[in-house]
Amino acid sequence: MLDPVLARIDADLPQATNRLLALLRIPSISTDRAYAPDCEAAADWLVQDLADMGFRAAKHPTPGRPMVVGSGGEGDRHLLFYGHYDVQPVDPLNLWRSPPFEPAVEETPAGPVIRGRGAADDKGQLMTFVEACRAWIAVHGKLPARVTMFFEGEEESGSPSLIPFMESNRDLLRADVALICDTGLFDRDTPAITTMLRGLLGEEVTITGPRMDLHSGMYGGAAINPIRVLSRIIAGLHDEAGRVTVPGFYEGVEELPPDLRAQWESLGFDAEAFLGDVGLSVPAGEQGRSVLESIWARPTAEVNGISGGYAGDGFKTVLPSRATAKISFRLVGRQDPLKIRESFRAMVRAQVPADCTVEFHDHGASPASVMDTSSPAFEAARAALTDEWPRPAAFTGSGGSIPVAGYFKAILGMDSMLIGFGNDDDLIHSPNEKYDVRSFHKGIRSWARILAALS
Amino acid sequence: MLDPVLARIDADLPQATNRLLALLRIPSISTDRAYAPDCEAAADWLVQDLADMGFRAAKHPTPGRPMVVGSGGEGDRHLLFYGHYDVQPVDPLNLWRSPPFEPAVEETPAGPVIRGRGAADDKGQLMTFVEACRAWIAVHGKLPARVTMFFEGEEESGSPSLIPFMESNRDLLRADVALICDTGLFDRDTPAITTMLRGLLGEEVTITGPRMDLHSGMYGGAAINPIRVLSRIIAGLHDEAGRVTVPGFYEGVEELPPDLRAQWESLGFDAEAFLGDVGLSVPAGEQGRSVLESIWARPTAEVNGISGGYAGDGFKTVLPSRATAKISFRLVGRQDPLKIRESFRAMVRAQVPADCTVEFHDHGASPASVMDTSSPAFEAARAALTDEWPRPAAFTGSGGSIPVAGYFKAILGMDSMLIGFGNDDDLIHSPNEKYDVRSFHKGIRSWARILAALS
Repeated sequence: MLDPVLARIDADLPQATNRLLALLRIPSISTDRAYAPDCEAAADWLVQDLADMGFRAAKHPTPGRPMVVGSGGEGDRHLLFYGHYDVQPVDPLNLWRSPPFEPAVEETPAGPVIRGRGAADDKGQLMTFVEACRAWIAVHGKLPARVTMFFEGEEESGSPSLIPFMESNRDLLRADVALICDTGLFDRDTPAITTMLRGLLGEEVTITGPRMDLHSGMYGGAAINPIRVLSRIIAGLHDEAGRVTVPGFYEGVEELPPDLRAQWESLGFDAEAFLGDVGLSVPAGEQGRSVLESIWARPTAEVNGISGGYAGDGFKTVLPSRATAKISFRLVGRQDPLKIRESFRAMVRAQVPADCTVEFHDHGASPASVMDTSSPAFEAARAALTDEWPRPAAFTGSGGSIPVAGYFKAILGMDSMLIGFGNDDDLIHSPNEKYDVRSFHKGIRSWARILAALS
Repeated sequence: MLDPVLARIDADLPQATNRLLALLRIPSISTDRAYAPDCEAAADWLVQDLADMGFRAAKHPTPGRPMVVGSGGEGDRHLLFYGHYDVQPVDPLNLWRSPPFEPAVEETPAGPVIRGRGAADDKGQLMTFVEACRAWIAVHGKLPARVTMFFEGEEESGSPSLIPFMESNRDLLRADVALICDTGLFDRDTPAITTMLRGLLGEEVTITGPRMDLHSGMYGGAAINPIRVLSRIIAGLHDEAGRVTVPGFYEGVEELPPDLRAQWESLGFDAEAFLGDVGLSVPAGEQGRSVLESIWARPTAEVNGISGGYAGDGFKTVLPSRATAKISFRLVGRQDPLKIRESFRAMVRAQVPADCTVEFHDHGASPASVMDTSSPAFEAARAALTDEWPRPAAFTGSGGSIPVAGYFKAILGMDSMLIGFGNDDDLIHSPNEKYDVRSFHKGIRSWARILAALS
């Protein structure tokens, strides 16, 4: 069943590339209202393309950019595929070597690339799955499973319509598992299924001391300085071993399963190069944890910003009234963001002296996503990827949050398989974004294999 | 000798007030170039007024606003008097209840006041000494001592020409002691001679970790966060007893002499009200020290500003490259600012982890000024003030720095007597500035007494 599909994909690559170039020519920037008509045009293009393949497809209006949903295929197994058709803005335009919305295939020393805004993030990746379905239908007249396509147009704008749309369209979207194509390969030759995503808890803490800014000559030595109070709180957030000191913080944090640890160790992650790229050499996380474990599987506390008093040029001898820090926690496993928020706030309150007050602002809370990789679908997809690429596929983690995966779980009760084919040098969000033709081609082939494996 | 002078002052008060109002009508704002001609006019007015009294007086050009120097009187004792004729800007103008440069005597429930920009800071105070000299000359035909008047026109602009002018005119300015009239009464009924001024050391510390701002999801748990490093340094600047931990910091800090301590205790300083005015209730300085001792006679370390990462609205999960703090030390006694700077920098460097770098920026260093009150002139002046006011005069401290006193010591080798008659409610630097007629009148009488006592 699979071989003729793969052969068809190989033969159809020029046409598939031309279809992607057509989609890339539409400047569907979601962050700028001026491009709202282009977002509509991109959604229309996708609806038409799905309809051409025999899908029942429609554009769904939202208060922002429209959603596209299409249904095709039949069978016991029901797969939901998610991608986004909106793209990042293009400034600074003068750094582009070719116009961002005049995409083209370009030869480079590392092989041919598709150059243009959205090539990798996410139109090229989205189309890998569409083209795999097209090849299955072309060869066998039908898909090997039931498939729902779900394309968003606001991912680069923080997805304001996503949760309401999911909540209002549960029946339209619910499937056995979600496939998300918006991530990368582990490295050029190693495909990955991201199965652990860290959660995020954001808190803003403001300490107020004196009613107004004071003169540090007149009041220094008598009045409490809120920067000093805040610094002590921050300094106490980690112990000497690099562990977070918030009481109960590690509840729900588990050690890596041995098989996953073995997979990660086999990846040959180059921690020295990872840190060296940003001018560092010493891992700064918990003692006794590898860098990869620290960023994929361990929770953290970071200060993302701090301000207080006079920070302009020169010097002012002010004793400030207020100091503020933005603090975030990356969460793993079954850590409960709301319990941690309460524990953090209690810990801070206990350190605020009698003469100061503290205010907290909530900047969001989402738990970690940990996929149930014991489900056979995950191993089946991993084997399918391993068949396509030079090196075995791995279950990996991600230090950042990919909110849509959490929403699929919370709202639709589905695990997600995050599978993508981007490379670190794709320049997503930057001038001269590109997607390797190899990523596009082997990405389509990978999905064709996964469709077979999951059906 | 003195009584007829005091009587003359009482009789001449309406004329003295009119002279002050004339000077106050000149908008001699030094911070705004547009008022440079007005500063010239104020200097000319003072030169003419001194000449009318028989002083040899002249305007001395500088790269900024001119200095006025006048010499009069004869005798073994040579006094230098310093004041400044420039004033603060007047914005926000709409908060003034009468035009700032249309000064007038105004009746208030607390007695008559002279309302207008510069009434207290410093034209009214400056004229108290001029009028005292005028009365001596009117009654006795001459001054009881040799007097040099020295008026600056850039005090509100940071005195950029003051040090070069002093250095180029040592012979013109050198005297036995300097009298500076730019401070206040201790309280409405208690005059003060400020004999201890804290010094100031300003440092800016920048910690750099990663080469660029990082995504806290991708790097959190692996990369060092410079805000965390800086917070630990700040948190370690004070021990649990509120003492500064910089090695050697307390070298040159001495306990208060018992007689001075007794004077301060007799002042009845209301620490509760002092802190209560700014919304505080708990003294935040070294344990076991009174608030007055903490702000007048103890050294401090304060963070005047801190910044790093994202401090705008909302939230960004950035792991910042840099964090900066502006830190100042108030110095007392014989603390050596340059030794403390080196010790502070060494202490910070020792806390910077291998992956971070630290940069320091020097924001000035001046030692404390401690006058030699064992010189008989100080006790003589104190007795003279005690004769004029309801309560005994005190030697007091000042938490802030008054740079000119330090320059007189460093450049001209003179101690300074800081004697002024301002009240806390004079609204200097604010709309509706005023000077009590009582301050003006008793100020003139005070200087007449001091001239007698010092001659």
